[in-house]
Amino acid sequence: MKSVAADESAPQRAVVLLSGGLDSATALAWARSQHYECYALSVAYGQRHHSELEAAARVALALGAREHRTMHVDLGALGGSALTDTAIAVPERPSSGIPITYVPARNTVLLSLALAWAEVLGARHLVIGVNAVDYSGYPDCRPEFIAAFQRLARLATRAGVEGAALQIHAPLQHWSKDRIIREGLSLGVDYAMTVSCYQADAQGRGCGRCDSCRLRREGFLAAGVADPTRYA
Amino acid sequence: MKSVAADESAPQRAVVLLSGGLDSATALAWARSQHYECYALSVAYGQRHHSELEAAARVALALGAREHRTMHVDLGALGGSALTDTAIAVPERPSSGIPITYVPARNTVLLSLALAWAEVLGARHLVIGVNAVDYSGYPDCRPEFIAAFQRLARLATRAGVEGAALQIHAPLQHWSKDRIIREGLSLGVDYAMTVSCYQADAQGRGCGRCDSCRLRREGFLAAGVADPTRYA
Repeated sequence: MKSVAADESAPQRAVVLLSGGLDSATALAWARSQHYECYALSVAYGQRHHSELEAAARVALALGAREHRTMHVDLGALGGSALTDTAIAVPERPSSGIPITYVPARNTVLLSLALAWAEVLGARHLVIGVNAVDYSGYPDCRPEFIAAFQRLARLATRAGVEGAALQIHAPLQHWSKDRIIREGLSLGVDYAMTVSCYQADAQGRGCGRCDSCRLRREGFLAAGVADPTRYA
Repeated sequence: MKSVAADESAPQRAVVLLSGGLDSATALAWARSQHYECYALSVAYGQRHHSELEAAARVALALGAREHRTMHVDLGALGGSALTDTAIAVPERPSSGIPITYVPARNTVLLSLALAWAEVLGARHLVIGVNAVDYSGYPDCRPEFIAAFQRLARLATRAGVEGAALQIHAPLQHWSKDRIIREGLSLGVDYAMTVSCYQADAQGRGCGRCDSCRLRREGFLAAGVADPTRYA
């Protein structure tokens, strides 16, 4: 278990969760702007929009991640979400309450895996692109969830026991979608590389109708910039 | 997402983490004694003592789990632990501090996966066989870690948002190893089925020298009962 703490001039390492979508690409660009040495982590959890994972690899390279890994965990086998179960249709109108596109405990699982890698790397920073303004109402995107995970992470780990204060960064948390886009553009994100659609095709083209496509389109409109999204 | 809450006379569902070792077998027997309908979850995370997973299947069946699943997640690919990295030797003497057999963020990952399955099942109970008395000093076995995970779980999930109080049970938490064995025997656990060794062979036989073998042997001795453990 190596630690970067020994050399204070070395860049701090951060594990950045990278789905390949608009938000996590922006979170990675933010982490780079903060001079973290970034280790991008994608998780193949059985999502049916697999082209997101290919987008993640492109984004990691373009934004200068030090390393990019894809871990596999089969949340899809558990069922219960339209994002992993092809028998459940992706809704094309906003719903009330927590939508069927919610993947059970997804962000808890993603942050846990990021935490595991961070421990091995001696990284004290985790970055996640959750957003609690223009989002789909998932419980594990809320600020209180992120704060609870940070508390857990400090208790869960060797670094925490040894006194290193592990930090979870959610820089997009309080930004509107159009602000996310404007910040990302100023940091050099090429959103044409990213895939947001819940049911993107094999080429990464969006359906233009799901909740995620709708939020993305409205974001570009409100930001007043050209929308590079490709639709099927 | 079905919930058992609708029928109060139905048994409550619990997801029980089951490694195939002595502690988790006892935790499953405890959960059955509390009349939970038990869904046993094993996780293949790259542990080199793979015979534990075969033991888990036998134990789940013998103790009347309603269902047993094994999920795969490759923590081993991240390295950093003697339990998943064959290039790191399993120590055969107690060490000070957190030992090299600690798997980074393991219990956080295991509980996250259990939480995901619990959400799909509508289960409000998670059971984990961690112990903070006769244990190897891992940070993620401590009561404050379990309490923090329960807090996180309630914030992370649909059930939590809807007001159902998810509970994490760690019944062995404050028991000595010999008490765990005595409780388990009174609940019908056949410890000959279980595998505790950090480097068990393909037949599930222990090395007799690692920390886990040592704690197990001392437990049977202190309990004053015959030790059915098979050694290589």
